[in-house]
Amino acid sequence: MEEAVSYMLKLLDERGVKLDDVAKIVHQLQFPYNSSLTLEDCRASVLAVLAKRDVQYTLLTGIALDMMAEKKLLPAPLQDIMEADESLYGVDEVLALGITNAYGMIGLTSFGYLDKEKSGIIRELNANGSHIHVFLDDLICALAAAASARIAHKSKNIKLYDWQRQQRSGRLAGESAVDGS
Amino acid sequence: MEEAVSYMLKLLDERGVKLDDVAKIVHQLQFPYNSSLTLEDCRASVLAVLAKRDVQYTLLTGIALDMMAEKKLLPAPLQDIMEADESLYGVDEVLALGITNAYGMIGLTSFGYLDKEKSGIIRELNANGSHIHVFLDDLICALAAAASARIAHKSKNIKLYDWQRQQRSGRLAGESAVDGS
Amino acid sequence: MEEAVSYMLKLLDERGVKLDDVAKIVHQLQFPYNSSLTLEDCRASVLAVLAKRDVQYTLLTGIALDMMAEKKLLPAPLQDIMEADESLYGVDEVLALGITNAYGMIGLTSFGYLDKEKSGIIRELNANGSHIHVFLDDLICALAAAASARIAHKSKNIKLYDWQRQQRSGRLAGESAVDGS
Amino acid sequence: MEEAVSYMLKLLDERGVKLDDVAKIVHQLQFPYNSSLTLEDCRASVLAVLAKRDVQYTLLTGIALDMMAEKKLLPAPLQDIMEADESLYGVDEVLALGITNAYGMIGLTSFGYLDKEKSGIIRELNANGSHIHVFLDDLICALAAAASARIAHKSKNIKLYDWQRQQRSGRLAGESAVDGS
Repeated sequence: MEEAVSYMLKLLDERGVKLDDVAKIVHQLQFPYNSSLTLEDCRASVLAVLAKRDVQYTLLTGIALDMMAEKKLLPAPLQDIMEADESLYGVDEVLALGITNAYGMIGLTSFGYLDKEKSGIIRELNANGSHIHVFLDDLICALAAAASARIAHKSKNIKLYDWQRQQRSGRLAGESAVDGS
Repeated sequence: MEEAVSYMLKLLDERGVKLDDVAKIVHQLQFPYNSSLTLEDCRASVLAVLAKRDVQYTLLTGIALDMMAEKKLLPAPLQDIMEADESLYGVDEVLALGITNAYGMIGLTSFGYLDKEKSGIIRELNANGSHIHVFLDDLICALAAAASARIAHKSKNIKLYDWQRQQRSGRLAGESAVDGS
Repeated sequence: MEEAVSYMLKLLDERGVKLDDVAKIVHQLQFPYNSSLTLEDCRASVLAVLAKRDVQYTLLTGIALDMMAEKKLLPAPLQDIMEADESLYGVDEVLALGITNAYGMIGLTSFGYLDKEKSGIIRELNANGSHIHVFLDDLICALAAAASARIAHKSKNIKLYDWQRQQRSGRLAGESAVDGS
Repeated sequence: MEEAVSYMLKLLDERGVKLDDVAKIVHQLQFPYNSSLTLEDCRASVLAVLAKRDVQYTLLTGIALDMMAEKKLLPAPLQDIMEADESLYGVDEVLALGITNAYGMIGLTSFGYLDKEKSGIIRELNANGSHIHVFLDDLICALAAAASARIAHKSKNIKLYDWQRQQRSGRLAGESAVDGS
C-alpha cells in the first residue's frame, strides 16, 4: 500500500502538484474551526486519503486522460472538447465525487467551494498554458476536500450527540421516543 | 403540474424564501458569464427547476424534516442532532444532490460554493434563531445551483463542440479517429 | 444536436452495441409495468437520453478509456488495472452516475440491477476476449437505466399525487397542514 | 461510539430488522466470491458499517421519516406520497447513497441489485401492510451493499495491482510510462 501512496505523490509531482500544495489548502479550509491545526496534520490527512484505493483509481484515471489529451492521443471529439476545456463538460466533477465521498458527504461542500474559488495551486494549474489539467484541478479540489472532511470527522472540537449521556438518562428508548417520552 | 409549482412557491414562502431570493442568487452566479441575463430569466429558470418531480419530492422531504424538528416531533437522537445543527450531519448535503443532479453535474460546483459562502437569503436562513433550517439552506443552494446550471446549458455564449463542422471535415470517422486521421 | 446523436450511435456500433440492443433491455425492464410498451417506444427513449449533453460527454470519455486500453496507450498502472478488469476498480460505476442521474434517482436501482445481472448485450460485451469494455458495459447499463427511468416518469399508468384534487379540497394549506387541518 | 452502534441495532430491531437479517444478505452477495466467508464475518462487517457516523445519521433520518408517516404526522403532500409509496419518489434512493458511498463506489451495483430483487428481509418489509417502510427497505439494501463492499475491499482473494513488483521492475517511472517504457 505504501508503494501506491509514494507512486501517487510522484505522479502528482510530475503533474505539477506537491504534497504541501494540497496540505496548505486543507489548512486554510480547517484552520478557522481549529486554531491548533498544523500543516503537518494536514499533510498526514492528505496521505491518509491517498492511501484509499478508490482515490488512487480515480487519480490514475483522471490524470491519464489529461496526459492523453496533452499528447493528442484521444479520439477526435473528446480530444477537441478537452483542449477547449468546454465549460459544460462535467465528467471531471463526476470523477471527483469518487474522491470526496471517501470521507462522508460533508466533503461535497468544500469541493464545490474550492472548484469555484480556485485558490493556490488550483489557480496555477488552470493558468498553465502548455499543459492540460481538465481533470487534475477538480481532483486536487476533491483531494483537499476529502482530507479536510477527514480532519473534521476526527476533530475533538466538534460537538456531537452524546450517546452515553442520553443512554443514562433513558431518552433513547426506541420507538417510544417518538411520543416525546 | 402547475399546481405543484405554485404549491412549492407557497411552501418556500412560508419557510421564509421568496422566488426572487433564489432568482437573485442565480443572477449573481451567471451574470459574469452573460451580461444580458435578466432577473426575469433567472426567475423562469428557478420555476423550470421547481417543475421537476424529483426536485419537488426532495423539497417536500427536507422541509418536512425542518418543520418536524421545529415542532419537536422527531424521535430523540435525530431531534437533538437537528436542534444542534451538528456540523458533521451530512444528510442535508446528500438530499441536495437530488436537486443539483437535475441539470447535470456542473451544478455540483455552484452548490458547494453557495453552501460555503452562504450569501443572501441563505445567510438569513442560518441566522434565524427561532426556526430550524438544517435542510432548507442546503436545498436553496441546490435549487439556485440547478437553475444556474440550466441557464449555462441553454446559453448561446458557450463554445461547444461543432459536430456539424467536424462531420463535414470528415474528422468524425469513428474508431479510425484514434489514429489521428 | 442531431449530429451528436448520430455520432453516438456510430460510436456505440463500432464498439459492438446497436440501438436495439439497448432498447431491448429497456423493454425488459419496463414491460412488467406497462404491457402496451413497444420496442419503438424504447428506441425513442434511448435516443432522447443520447441527446443529453452530459450523457454524450460521459460516453465519449468512458469509451475513449476502453479504446486507449485496447491500444495499450494508457500509462503503466492504469493500463494493467484495466487489462485485468480489477473488480475493485469503481471509476466505471462513478462515470455511469453521470448518465443515470439524467432522469432522476430511480435510475440508480435499475443500473445496479443490470450491472449485476449482465443480461443480453452486456453479457456479450463482458465475454468478448479481444476487446476491453471496462467502461462500456457500465455505461450501457446506465443508458438503459436512464431510458427506462424516462419512460417511467412519462408513464400514464403511474399513480401520482393529485395536486389539483388536493387543492380543491383545501388540504394544501401550507404550514397548517402539519396540524392535520 | 459503541453506544451509537447498539442504539442502531435496537432501532433496526424495533423496525423489524435484525442484525442477522442483514448479515445473511451480505453472505449471499459475497459467498460466490469467497467460499470460506462465514456469517460471523458478515455480522462483523455490518457492525463496522453501523459504526460510521454518516451511516448512523442516514439511518436515523430515513427511519424517522417512516415513523412520522406511520403516525400520520407528516405535512399533507408528503404524508400522502409516502402512504401511497409512489414509485417515482426517489428520495429514499438518494439517502441510501449516503450509506453505499461509505465503502467506495462498487457498493452502488449491489445496492441497485438488492433494491430490485428484494430478497429476504427486504421483501418482508415491503409486504408488511400496517407499517410504512418507504425508506427502511432502501436503507437496508444500502447497508448490506456497503458491508458487502467492505468485505470485497478486505478480501485476500482479489487480484490487485502489485505495486511492489512493478516498482522493482522499473515499470513505474512516472510520465515516461506513457511512452511504454
